[in-house]
Amino acid sequence: MGNKFTSRTEDYSKWYNELVGRAELAEHSDVRGCMVIKPYGYAIWEKMKDVLDLKFKETGHSNAYFPLFIPKSYLSKEAKHVEGFAKECAVVTHYRLKNDENGDVVVDPEAKLEEELIVRPTSETIIWNSYKNWIQSYRDLPILINQWANVVRWEMRTRLFLRTAEFLWQEGHTAHATKQEAIEEAEQMLHVYADFAENFMAMPVVKGVKSESERFAGAEETYCIEAMMQDGKALQAGTSHFLGQNFAKAFDVKFSDKEGKLSHVWATSWGVSTRLMGALIMTHSDDEGLVLPPKLAPIQVVIVPIYKGDEQLAMITEKVIPLMAELRKKGISVKYDDDDNKRPGWKFAEYEAKGVPVRIAIGKRDLENNVAEVARRDEKTKETVEWESLLAHIESLLHEIQDNLFNKAKAFRDEMVTEVSSFEEFKDVLDNKGGFVSAHWDGTIETEDKIKELTKATIRCIPLDSEREEGVCVYTGKPSTRRVLFAKAY
Amino acid sequence: MGNKFTSRTEDYSKWYNELVGRAELAEHSDVRGCMVIKPYGYAIWEKMKDVLDLKFKETGHSNAYFPLFIPKSYLSKEAKHVEGFAKECAVVTHYRLKNDENGDVVVDPEAKLEEELIVRPTSETIIWNSYKNWIQSYRDLPILINQWANVVRWEMRTRLFLRTAEFLWQEGHTAHATKQEAIEEAEQMLHVYADFAENFMAMPVVKGVKSESERFAGAEETYCIEAMMQDGKALQAGTSHFLGQNFAKAFDVKFSDKEGKLSHVWATSWGVSTRLMGALIMTHSDDEGLVLPPKLAPIQVVIVPIYKGDEQLAMITEKVIPLMAELRKKGISVKYDDDDNKRPGWKFAEYEAKGVPVRIAIGKRDLENNVAEVARRDEKTKETVEWESLLAHIESLLHEIQDNLFNKAKAFRDEMVTEVSSFEEFKDVLDNKGGFVSAHWDGTIETEDKIKELTKATIRCIPLDSEREEGVCVYTGKPSTRRVLFAKAY
Repeated sequence: MGNKFTSRTEDYSKWYNELVGRAELAEHSDVRGCMVIKPYGYAIWEKMKDVLDLKFKETGHSNAYFPLFIPKSYLSKEAKHVEGFAKECAVVTHYRLKNDENGDVVVDPEAKLEEELIVRPTSETIIWNSYKNWIQSYRDLPILINQWANVVRWEMRTRLFLRTAEFLWQEGHTAHATKQEAIEEAEQMLHVYADFAENFMAMPVVKGVKSESERFAGAEETYCIEAMMQDGKALQAGTSHFLGQNFAKAFDVKFSDKEGKLSHVWATSWGVSTRLMGALIMTHSDDEGLVLPPKLAPIQVVIVPIYKGDEQLAMITEKVIPLMAELRKKGISVKYDDDDNKRPGWKFAEYEAKGVPVRIAIGKRDLENNVAEVARRDEKTKETVEWESLLAHIESLLHEIQDNLFNKAKAFRDEMVTEVSSFEEFKDVLDNKGGFVSAHWDGTIETEDKIKELTKATIRCIPLDSEREEGVCVYTGKPSTRRVLFAKAY
Repeated sequence: MGNKFTSRTEDYSKWYNELVGRAELAEHSDVRGCMVIKPYGYAIWEKMKDVLDLKFKETGHSNAYFPLFIPKSYLSKEAKHVEGFAKECAVVTHYRLKNDENGDVVVDPEAKLEEELIVRPTSETIIWNSYKNWIQSYRDLPILINQWANVVRWEMRTRLFLRTAEFLWQEGHTAHATKQEAIEEAEQMLHVYADFAENFMAMPVVKGVKSESERFAGAEETYCIEAMMQDGKALQAGTSHFLGQNFAKAFDVKFSDKEGKLSHVWATSWGVSTRLMGALIMTHSDDEGLVLPPKLAPIQVVIVPIYKGDEQLAMITEKVIPLMAELRKKGISVKYDDDDNKRPGWKFAEYEAKGVPVRIAIGKRDLENNVAEVARRDEKTKETVEWESLLAHIESLLHEIQDNLFNKAKAFRDEMVTEVSSFEEFKDVLDNKGGFVSAHWDGTIETEDKIKELTKATIRCIPLDSEREEGVCVYTGKPSTRRVLFAKAY
C-alpha cells in the first residue's frame, strides 16, 4: 500500500485500473472479459441496488425473473433489435460434456441443441414472449416489472466496470395501454435515474434524448443521462427507452380496450448497470484513491486508535465503544480498526484508497484532552474536535461531504460544457480541453457520422432542457433549431 | 378463479402445478427447463433472500460476484467434482451470430471459442481459481464470501422451483487456515439454514450428514437439512459442505502460517436455492391454495371492503386508512383492495390462493357495530373483532399463525418418522405411509444402492442428533451402530 499510485495527469487510464485494484473493487478473471467483483466493490453496488430498488418499488414496480437464455429465433423477431444485439453474443450450442477415450472432458457431439440459445444481452424478446400470455385486456395493464440480472455482450476490448462481457444490471420492462402512458413511464424512470445519480452518487447528469443513430436497437426514443468524467470524456450512465409498439408487434401482444377493440400494447424498457461503478469512481476519485459519497459508502466512518501497548488501546477502545453505538443508532456505518498488525499510517493510506468519507484518529494525548482528530476524505483536511460535539460533527460532516462532492463535480461539469459556433472551435475544444461541446447540428445521420469520423466525438444527447435557438450546423452550415451535446465518450 | 383446484389427495403433483400457477408464483418459459418467476413468487423469494443475507452478514460474510462462465478445463481439475457436474451443462462454443445469404441469423462459424465455456452449475472452480491469487499468508484468512447468482444444470425432467435448468441461489465459499475452523464454518451455516427454515419458513428440518454416495462432488462431508413434504416425500432444503483441501489442491492454493510453513487451505461451500420455494409451498399449502408463514408473506394482511355504492366505500375507506397507517408503523404489510371490478367473494378466493395470512372484511353493518371480520388463512376460521382491539389482535394473530404453521408441520413431520426393524416393514412403510423410515444400515454403498433399486428410497441423512444404538442392517443383517433416515425424495 505504501507505493505511490499513478496520478491522473500521468496516465488517466492506468490510474483508473490501479485504483480499481488498490481499492479492492474488482479484478479481471481468467474468463475473457468477465470480471470478479470483490467484496468491497460489491458492497458499493449493493448500496446502489438497495436505493434504486426502493425507488422502483415506490414508483409501483415489482421485481421478477426471466430466463438467462433466449432462443436464437427470438432475437430476429424485432428487425432493428437483432441488428443491434444479435452480433456479439455468447451462444450455447450443446448441453452435455463427456469423457473422450483419453479421459479428457470434451463436448458431447450428441448433445447438440436443435435451436441454439443466446445468453441474454438484454431481455426484451424473452419478456415480451411472456407478456403475450399475460395480457388480454386493458385490465391486465400496466405491467410494471423490473429484473436484477446478469447479461452478456461479447466485447473484445474490456475495462473493469466500464465495459465487460458479463455485467450486472437491472432492466425494467413495462407494458401500457396508451402511447402517452408509456412515454410518461420512460420519462419518469429517466428522472428516477437522474435523481439517483445526483442525490446519491453526487454525480451531476444531463438529461436528454439520443439521436437516431445512438438510439437503443428497437426503440422509438431513447432517453439518457450523461455524466462528465474527470478526463473530459462523457459517460452514459443510464437509459430509458420508449419502445413504441415495436416489441408488441414482433411478439403479437394485443389487448382489448373497454370497448373490446384490439390494439397492440405500448412498451418501455430502462436500465442501469455496474457501469455506474465506473462512473462513480471517475467522477470523484483522486490520486490517493477512491472518493465515495457518504450515501454509498459501505464504511462511512473509520476509527483508528493510535496507541502504544495494550493498556492505551484498552483505554481508547473503552472511549470509542459508546461513540460507535451512537453512530450506529443514527444509521451511520462505522468501523473500528484496532488491527495490531498494521501501523496507523498504513491504515490511513488504506482507508484513503478505499474512499472512506470520514476518518477519526484517537491517541493517548487526545484522550487526555477529550478530543479526536477528524479527517475528511474529500478535501483531505483534518481538524481537532471536542469529544462532546463529535457525534453531531460527524453527522453534519457526512452531509457536508455529500454536498461538497456534488458541488465540486457540478462545477467541473459546468466548466466542461463549451458552446462553439465553428467546426474549428469544435475540434479545438475536443483536442485541447475535452468535455461536452454544445453545438448546432443539422439533424442528419450523415453529418453525425462525418463528425464522429473526423473527431471521434458522438452526439451524447439532445438535452431535455435545451432551448430553441436558431443557428447553423457546425459542420454543414445548414439550419438548426437547437444545440446538442457532443463529446468523446466511454 | 372460481374454478375448483385439483385437491392434494386427488393428484398431488397436479395440485402443486396448479397452485404455482394460480398463486402466480412462476410459470414455464419457452426455453426448455427455464422458469419465469412472476412478481408475487419473486416477492416471496426476495423476503427469503433478505433474511438469509442478513444472517450471512451477521456471521461475518460479505457478498461478491464471480463470472457466469467457467472454462471447460477448470471443471476437470478436481476429479470427483467433474464426475458430479461436468455432464449436464450448458456449453458456450461461439461468441457471434451473423446473417447468412438468406438473411437468417446463424451462428458465425468463424467465431468459435478456443476453449468452450460452461455456464456455471456451481462456482467452486472459478472461485478457487481467484482465491489462488488472494491467499498468500494466514493473514489473508479466513475468506468468508457469499454470492447470489443464477446457475444452470441441464435437467431433462423439470418442475417449477423444484428442479429447473436455471435456478437462483446463493453459494457461500470460504477459505480457512485449519481443518477445525472449516468444519465449524460448515456446521455453523447448517445451523443458519435450519434456523431460517424453522423460524421463518415454519418448516421443521432434520439436520444431518449425507452418506458417501449422496455427498456433494468434491466434498469430504456434506451437511444437510431435510424436510418432509405433505405427500410423504422428503426434500433436501439446503446443504453445507466441508471440502477439505480438495479444491485448494486442485487449484494449488497454499498459505504460509506464522512460522512461514506452507499448507493447503481448507474450504467450505454452502447453498440454498429457489427450491426453497417448492419446499415452502409443499409444507403448508392446502386445497384452497398457498399458505404462507407471516414472516415471508409479501402481503401479511389484506383488507376487503364490502359495500354498495361510493358512499359506503368512502365511509369504510375513511375508517381503514388510520388502521393501515398503524399496521405499517408496526412493520406489518397491508393491502387495501377496493378494486371495484371484482366481487368480494372473488377477492377472498384470490387472497386465499395467494396465501395471505390475515384477511379483514368490513361492511356497513360492521361499521355501525364498530367491528371487523378477521379471517385467518391457516385454519380458515373467522371471528368478529372489536375495532378498538383490532390492531393488537392482528399483531398477535400473525405471531400465532407463524407458530401454528410450524407446530402443525412439526406434528406432521414427527408422525412421518417411522422406526422399522425389518426390510418387510421398511417396504410396507414406504408403500403405504411414506415419510422418513428410520432404520439401521450397514454403512456400505452396496446396500444403499440395493435398497434404492428395490424401493426408490435413498438415505436422506444420518441425523446429527442420532444416538448410538446397536442394531442390525435392515437389509443385510450386518451390525450397525446407528439409525439413518431413508425416504423417497424430491
